[in-house]
Amino acid sequence: MKFQELIERLKVPAEQTSFGQGGALNPELSGISAIDQAQAGELSFIGGAAFAGWVSKTQASALILPQDPALWQAAEDRHIAWIATDQPRLLFAQALGAFYRPWQPSAGIHPTAFVDPSVQIGQAVSIGANASVQAGVVLGSGVCIHANAALYPQVVVGDRTVIHANCVIHERSVLGRDCVIHSGAVIGSEGFGFVPTATGWEKMPQSGRTILEDGVEVGCNSAIDRPAVGETRIGQGTKIDNLVQVGHGCQVGQQCLLVSQVGLAGAAQLGDRVMIGGQSGVVEKIKLGDLARVTAKSLVLQDVGAGETVSGIPAMPNKLWLRTVVLIRRLPELFRRGDRSGS
Amino acid sequence: MKFQELIERLKVPAEQTSFGQGGALNPELSGISAIDQAQAGELSFIGGAAFAGWVSKTQASALILPQDPALWQAAEDRHIAWIATDQPRLLFAQALGAFYRPWQPSAGIHPTAFVDPSVQIGQAVSIGANASVQAGVVLGSGVCIHANAALYPQVVVGDRTVIHANCVIHERSVLGRDCVIHSGAVIGSEGFGFVPTATGWEKMPQSGRTILEDGVEVGCNSAIDRPAVGETRIGQGTKIDNLVQVGHGCQVGQQCLLVSQVGLAGAAQLGDRVMIGGQSGVVEKIKLGDLARVTAKSLVLQDVGAGETVSGIPAMPNKLWLRTVVLIRRLPELFRRGDRSGS
Amino acid sequence: MKFQELIERLKVPAEQTSFGQGGALNPELSGISAIDQAQAGELSFIGGAAFAGWVSKTQASALILPQDPALWQAAEDRHIAWIATDQPRLLFAQALGAFYRPWQPSAGIHPTAFVDPSVQIGQAVSIGANASVQAGVVLGSGVCIHANAALYPQVVVGDRTVIHANCVIHERSVLGRDCVIHSGAVIGSEGFGFVPTATGWEKMPQSGRTILEDGVEVGCNSAIDRPAVGETRIGQGTKIDNLVQVGHGCQVGQQCLLVSQVGLAGAAQLGDRVMIGGQSGVVEKIKLGDLARVTAKSLVLQDVGAGETVSGIPAMPNKLWLRTVVLIRRLPELFRRGDRSGS
Repeated sequence: MKFQELIERLKVPAEQTSFGQGGALNPELSGISAIDQAQAGELSFIGGAAFAGWVSKTQASALILPQDPALWQAAEDRHIAWIATDQPRLLFAQALGAFYRPWQPSAGIHPTAFVDPSVQIGQAVSIGANASVQAGVVLGSGVCIHANAALYPQVVVGDRTVIHANCVIHERSVLGRDCVIHSGAVIGSEGFGFVPTATGWEKMPQSGRTILEDGVEVGCNSAIDRPAVGETRIGQGTKIDNLVQVGHGCQVGQQCLLVSQVGLAGAAQLGDRVMIGGQSGVVEKIKLGDLARVTAKSLVLQDVGAGETVSGIPAMPNKLWLRTVVLIRRLPELFRRGDRSGS
Repeated sequence: MKFQELIERLKVPAEQTSFGQGGALNPELSGISAIDQAQAGELSFIGGAAFAGWVSKTQASALILPQDPALWQAAEDRHIAWIATDQPRLLFAQALGAFYRPWQPSAGIHPTAFVDPSVQIGQAVSIGANASVQAGVVLGSGVCIHANAALYPQVVVGDRTVIHANCVIHERSVLGRDCVIHSGAVIGSEGFGFVPTATGWEKMPQSGRTILEDGVEVGCNSAIDRPAVGETRIGQGTKIDNLVQVGHGCQVGQQCLLVSQVGLAGAAQLGDRVMIGGQSGVVEKIKLGDLARVTAKSLVLQDVGAGETVSGIPAMPNKLWLRTVVLIRRLPELFRRGDRSGS
Repeated sequence: MKFQELIERLKVPAEQTSFGQGGALNPELSGISAIDQAQAGELSFIGGAAFAGWVSKTQASALILPQDPALWQAAEDRHIAWIATDQPRLLFAQALGAFYRPWQPSAGIHPTAFVDPSVQIGQAVSIGANASVQAGVVLGSGVCIHANAALYPQVVVGDRTVIHANCVIHERSVLGRDCVIHSGAVIGSEGFGFVPTATGWEKMPQSGRTILEDGVEVGCNSAIDRPAVGETRIGQGTKIDNLVQVGHGCQVGQQCLLVSQVGLAGAAQLGDRVMIGGQSGVVEKIKLGDLARVTAKSLVLQDVGAGETVSGIPAMPNKLWLRTVVLIRRLPELFRRGDRSGS
């Protein structure tokens, strides 16, 4: 792709580019790389001041740059075409999308797949090798089900949603439009509900269902359970990383981010745009307000207010935690003091 | 289902119901819901005092209530049929079971499944689409193997055990009766055993096997490894949640509960009715006595006595931990004190 | 197998055995067991002084012993054949390998597997039931792909590598020779990359690939993501346990050990022979030097130097952590002291 074509595709204003500023450079771009690995013919980006020095040594033929005329000049001096933007990382993402799309099989039902005759199938649906789709499933247009995925009965999948290989989508789950379910994830399995009795654990049947709203991503081998009654719900645009556990009956808001290996116990309630760092846990029925943040490897035992950031095991306000972790390292000193003071 | 029929099915004594106490209410029940979501025609339950206020506003047509005549009266005043019990949650579980059963394919071998000719198959067995069952496997009566599950050779599966989609059961594993293996779980894979040498890690072959006794549940994408020699064993009635790791050679007792994302390192030994909270870890060869409890996100480095509850990283008695977590938050104050005292 | 044959197979010097020292014992060995479970006709081993007492009571017919003539004599007195070695555990591993090999299907493509006509297949390759292998994949000699595994396009698999059931290997991944990918693992899926915008999370396309060098093992249901650009790389001989997350763009050195449920965030860099204990986490872009060690359930927020051992949340030098965890338990005492001193 020519540099000029990329600019047009990305809808960048001409004056924000070397081309629009009179530069003649219009390199043929073959791909995209990180700034330290880019070769001639490739596009790369500089996200901020920390990487600015790379302008003088990168082999890239074109660069996405922040709003810094000195960097633009440095690029021109080295005959590198450039695009300026307030958000280099975002434009880089969009440029990557112009060069690259993840593999998707062509539309059609693979002859080795099993699809129950009652399944409703939209236009341009792809069902991969050895996949299985049970009775009453409804698949929207452009849905892609990769090899070996298994859909239990009465699942509904919205338009353009992609279900990767070896996923399992359990009965009555509803997946919105434009979702991506990564390989090995399990949606809508039975929640972990047991009632203690004198003779052991009696199972609480899990008759509810799991709902993913539009634009949800679920990472590899993550699990989102269904509840005894009612729904487990993941809000529009929420992104869930690999190996995450979402317990039965959780209500997760919109545009949240759950990083890898997070665990939400049953009936946790997250507002919108909540972010939870890797390996953190939230216990049963806890509420996290909009924009709440939990840093990595924390354990949330109490509700967290909107906009608050918490850390630690158990979680406390992040600022307090930052002070305690410094002081914990000084405990030997404190105990020596105490010993000296003779008490 | 009529209210009267439900009472009979649940074998509730008549005098413990509005019906038996002369009430004429016998609503047709169409389903079961949580108390805050129940609609007319539905059954719900009130587990304890915290939810008692719902009797005056729920739309449910029938309620399971605790032993509290004031609540019974309040229900009758609103023309709600009721059942009284010492254990509302348990009765609710049983009522759910009367209305709902998880989907199970009908008996028979799906034409797309691969089943080795040497496999022994009991009565009314179901083997789903694209499943594979290798040589020498023995399947009891009523066994259900869902789509895309893979059984390696010489596996034995007890009567009525359900293996969900995309599970893998490795060679020589033995699964008892009435077990449920949830989607994506892996039973009996090779333990993580390597011996250091000058040139790298030499693999310790894992020739043992994994045994699940009757009534064991294993959650989605959990893994229970087999050991180098001998057995990994999960005791009767033990319930394991999603994404749990059970290392090679672990001996887990009966009726234990391992919550999501727990990890047991190799050769851990758990007594009966041990409960381990989510994201907790137990290191190699540790022993936990009967009824020991580990709260969430703890790390057990030492043996835990029968009936003890431990918490923390590393784990300590729960009462001590509860005090330390309060005091850690007061460390800034303590250090200020120390500074003021001039030491 | 006769004892004498085993000695020859293991290439043990004759003088390091009861046989070579004039003993006539040459038992027929039927298998291998742990010292406390060994029966007549079995081989077992004693790894160190803690188990030495077992020489006088084991039922084993042959023993691998440390370099301790008293133990050799004790074995002879009980008519037990023995082999002496500096590394009993290593020799035991090798002996196990002489008796036991994990099940592997015979070479050939199962009729229920889907293999794209463009796939290049080496000699003696096995592709199991209901597996799927997409276009452009290259499989070396002796590769074994178990049932229901799914390989996306353009994957390269080195000689003798084993891919267990229900694994997913994503597009363009490269697996070296003699790797083992355990059941349910996912290699080369899209990294968790999103850019915040006013309207939600914009996906960063993940155009890179994941590379496993020779001799890598990846545990059950683990996930190793691919990056936006460039490579995620796991070095030669590194062993990864179950349920481990390796984020996009991580560079893991040779002969590392990542224990179960470890999580590496994006772009972490590990040197060679790094060991990370179970449930530990490493945040983005952190560097760990050669031979660095992280103990279980730690959170690494800062770089760790070569040969250092760190522990805790957040991680600190292990020696300091060991002192702080003792002192944290003494906090109640310290606060009492402070109260008594009247400040």
